[in-house]
Amino acid sequence: MEHLIEKTLAKEKIFSGKVIEVYVEDVQLPNGKTSKREVVKHPGAVAVIPVTNEGKVVLVRQYRKAMERVLVEIPAGKLEKGEEPLATAHRELEEETGYRCGPMRHVVSFYTSPGFADELIHLYVAEQLTKVENAASLDEDEFVDVLEVTLEEALALLERQEIYDAKTAYALQYLQLQRALGAKHE
Amino acid sequence: MEHLIEKTLAKEKIFSGKVIEVYVEDVQLPNGKTSKREVVKHPGAVAVIPVTNEGKVVLVRQYRKAMERVLVEIPAGKLEKGEEPLATAHRELEEETGYRCGPMRHVVSFYTSPGFADELIHLYVAEQLTKVENAASLDEDEFVDVLEVTLEEALALLERQEIYDAKTAYALQYLQLQRALGAKHE
Repeated sequence: MEHLIEKTLAKEKIFSGKVIEVYVEDVQLPNGKTSKREVVKHPGAVAVIPVTNEGKVVLVRQYRKAMERVLVEIPAGKLEKGEEPLATAHRELEEETGYRCGPMRHVVSFYTSPGFADELIHLYVAEQLTKVENAASLDEDEFVDVLEVTLEEALALLERQEIYDAKTAYALQYLQLQRALGAKHE
Repeated sequence: MEHLIEKTLAKEKIFSGKVIEVYVEDVQLPNGKTSKREVVKHPGAVAVIPVTNEGKVVLVRQYRKAMERVLVEIPAGKLEKGEEPLATAHRELEEETGYRCGPMRHVVSFYTSPGFADELIHLYVAEQLTKVENAASLDEDEFVDVLEVTLEEALALLERQEIYDAKTAYALQYLQLQRALGAKHE
């Protein structure tokens, strides 16, 4: 892979915020020339596909400042320092939806925007959902509506671009694939 | 949705780079309290699922500075100012793989990281691939290897986390789903 690698010549921290850090790096390209790379550092996150005993998907509607609009997404949240992704997943599910679940199943992990950011998302499926009486509460700057919809209803939300993000699109396609594979074996 | 919306009270531009802009915004939350949001603005991008006449997927291997590692991804690239996504998709396919294709089919569009960035990716399928003699060349700071693999080989790369990003994971699952649905109709 040596013929692809970029060497870091210098690295300047531009910004250090609550969530992200931003760097500009001078790199030496494989052909010896130099260029600049803009890099966003992110703590990483988890997302959960919660499926109720009735086969519905639990989604959250929330305002997203980056797009200045409301989006419907699967429950998700940033990793806290030193927290295991699976623990984050259970915490976020309870905080955002009021549900606890049986053992979660890891589906996939992926970088969301490898061109400019190192955010890594770990995706889990949660089943055997039970409502919690005194659920852990949201962060004080989080406001969400909880929706429970069928897969068909969720796909209609995707069609209407109310669902409009990569992890949720992946999650719905995952449920479609499971159903299609299940149907084949029937 | 009024009960979810955050009002912008102030907006400070932190950084304006080649690719991204970074803002810190003061917002009024639905409950009247204030908070800060960190927002990365991105021009948007396209990604292409190129499938050869033999049913292989064309992938590119490249170095990603944000993760400081080599990743295997479907061909993709940023939107140029004023360029239609479909035109970008044809251009990037040719630049990165040396292939032209028949009419592309739009699969889905999604925000990659709605928690902190507005990057929107438009995903297309490209078939009827033909190698171009004098293909448009890569940007001068781009270096890629081209791979042609079966879906099974691509899924093995995902398993080994050589494929490790959302758009490519979505693309492989899309091909799995098409195959599963096709198999059902046989």
